[in-house]
Amino acid sequence: MENVQIKENERIDDLQIKDYRIIQKTDGFCFGIDAVLLSDYARVKKKSKGIDLCSGTGIIPILMEGKYPLAYVEGLEYQEEFSKMAERSVKMNGQEEKVHIVQGDVRNIKTDYERESFDWVTCNPPYMTGEHGLTNPDYAKAIARHEITCSLEDVVQAAKWLLKTGGHFYMVHRPFRLAEIIYTLKQHKLEPKRMRLVHPYVDKEPNMVLIDAAKGGKQRITVEPPLIVYNKDGSYTDEIYQIYGEMKN
Amino acid sequence: MENVQIKENERIDDLQIKDYRIIQKTDGFCFGIDAVLLSDYARVKKKSKGIDLCSGTGIIPILMEGKYPLAYVEGLEYQEEFSKMAERSVKMNGQEEKVHIVQGDVRNIKTDYERESFDWVTCNPPYMTGEHGLTNPDYAKAIARHEITCSLEDVVQAAKWLLKTGGHFYMVHRPFRLAEIIYTLKQHKLEPKRMRLVHPYVDKEPNMVLIDAAKGGKQRITVEPPLIVYNKDGSYTDEIYQIYGEMKN
Repeated sequence: MENVQIKENERIDDLQIKDYRIIQKTDGFCFGIDAVLLSDYARVKKKSKGIDLCSGTGIIPILMEGKYPLAYVEGLEYQEEFSKMAERSVKMNGQEEKVHIVQGDVRNIKTDYERESFDWVTCNPPYMTGEHGLTNPDYAKAIARHEITCSLEDVVQAAKWLLKTGGHFYMVHRPFRLAEIIYTLKQHKLEPKRMRLVHPYVDKEPNMVLIDAAKGGKQRITVEPPLIVYNKDGSYTDEIYQIYGEMKN
Repeated sequence: MENVQIKENERIDDLQIKDYRIIQKTDGFCFGIDAVLLSDYARVKKKSKGIDLCSGTGIIPILMEGKYPLAYVEGLEYQEEFSKMAERSVKMNGQEEKVHIVQGDVRNIKTDYERESFDWVTCNPPYMTGEHGLTNPDYAKAIARHEITCSLEDVVQAAKWLLKTGGHFYMVHRPFRLAEIIYTLKQHKLEPKRMRLVHPYVDKEPNMVLIDAAKGGKQRITVEPPLIVYNKDGSYTDEIYQIYGEMKN
C-alpha cells in the first residue's frame, strides 16, 4: 500500500475492505450507500472483465476488485479532476494491476471501445434529469447529480455496445424513474432480469432501486424482497450490517 | 335484494360490503385477494364512469360500485357463461342501475366502443403468457388464467382506446411480468404513475403488483411502500384488515 499525498479539499476514507481507502473531495460528491449496495448486488464471475460508467471517485471499480476475483475492471469518468483522483486511490490501494481508470465520455463509447468487449457493466449514474433545471453552483457536483454529460439513454446505449450477449448491466437509480429505466433498457435489448427496491423503513417508499439487466435475455423479471435499511428503532437492519460486514472481511 | 336461483356447480359468497354477494362456480375460477386489492387501489372520482376488462364473475364492477359513488361501471367479459353469471350477481345485489355486464371481446374494442368514453379502466387479466403451454383441462379456467382471449397487449390497447386523456388504468398482475407491463403501457402512452408490490411476507418476493397508469401522463412514477399481507406469525397485517374491513362498512 503506497502512501499518497492528498490535496487541499480532499480527504481519505477507509473502505473497510482489504484496508482499501478512497480519496474524496471534502466539498464534492462523496460516495454513499448506493455504491456499496450496487457492488453487493452485482453477481460477477471469476476472471470476468467489467467496466463502470460515470465512475466518479472510482468507488465502484475499487469495491468490485476488493470483493470479487475479477480479471480486470475499468472505471470510465468524464471529469479529469475525478479520474485523476480515482487513479491516485487505485495506486494508494495497490490495485493498478486490475483496476484501470480512464478519462472519457460515455457518448463516444462506439469510437473509443470495441463492441461486446465486456462481461458486465456497472453504473451509478446521475439521478436527476436535466429538465429539472436545478443547476448546482458547483459544476463538478452538478455533473455527478444531473444528466449533463451522462443521461440514462447515454448510459444504456453505452452498456448495450460494451456488453457481450448474455452479459449483465447492473445499475442503481431512483425509483421515480423506474418506468423510464425499464422502458429504455428494453428498447436497447437489455432485459431486466432482477430488481430490488431499497426502502429506508419497511413502511416508507423506496429511495433506491437496484437493477440487473441481461443483454438479449428472455422476458421475465424477478422482483426480489425489499431491502430495508433501518429497523423501526432507527438501527441498521441485519442485512445492511451483513453487506457492510462483508466489506470488513 | 332479489333472490336468485343458482345452478349446479355454483355457489354464492358474501362480499362483506353492503350485503352484496357474488355467484361463483364451485369448480371454476373464483375471485381472490387480487380483485379486492385492485378495487381498493383504484382512486376514482364521484360520478365517474368506468369499465372493467376481462371481468369474469363481475367481482370488480360489483366491488367498485359498492365502494365508490360512481355514475356507472361496465364489466366486459368474453365468456358468455361468466357474463350471464355476473349479470345474475348484479341483479341479486340490486345493482342493475349502475353496473352493466356486457359479453364481448377486448380485441373488438375499437368497433364496439366509442373512443375516449371512460374515466377509468380496471383489469385483473390472465397472468400467464400463452407461450407457457400450460393449458388447463377446464377451458373456462384456462381462459381466466392464460392469455388466450385477452393478452396484456390486447388489454393495454383496449384501455388506451377507452380512456379519456388523463384517465387512469388500474391493473393487478404478477411481478415476473413487470418489465413487459411497464414497456407495453409506455408504448401505448399509458404512463405508469403509481406502483405497489404486494408481498406475502416482508422478507419474501412479491406475488402481485398493482399499477396505476395515466393516459398521456408525465414521466414520473411513485413506487409506494410494500403491501405486506401476513405478519411473521402468519396473522394478517393491520393494512389487510383495514382493506377488508372497509368492505364491511
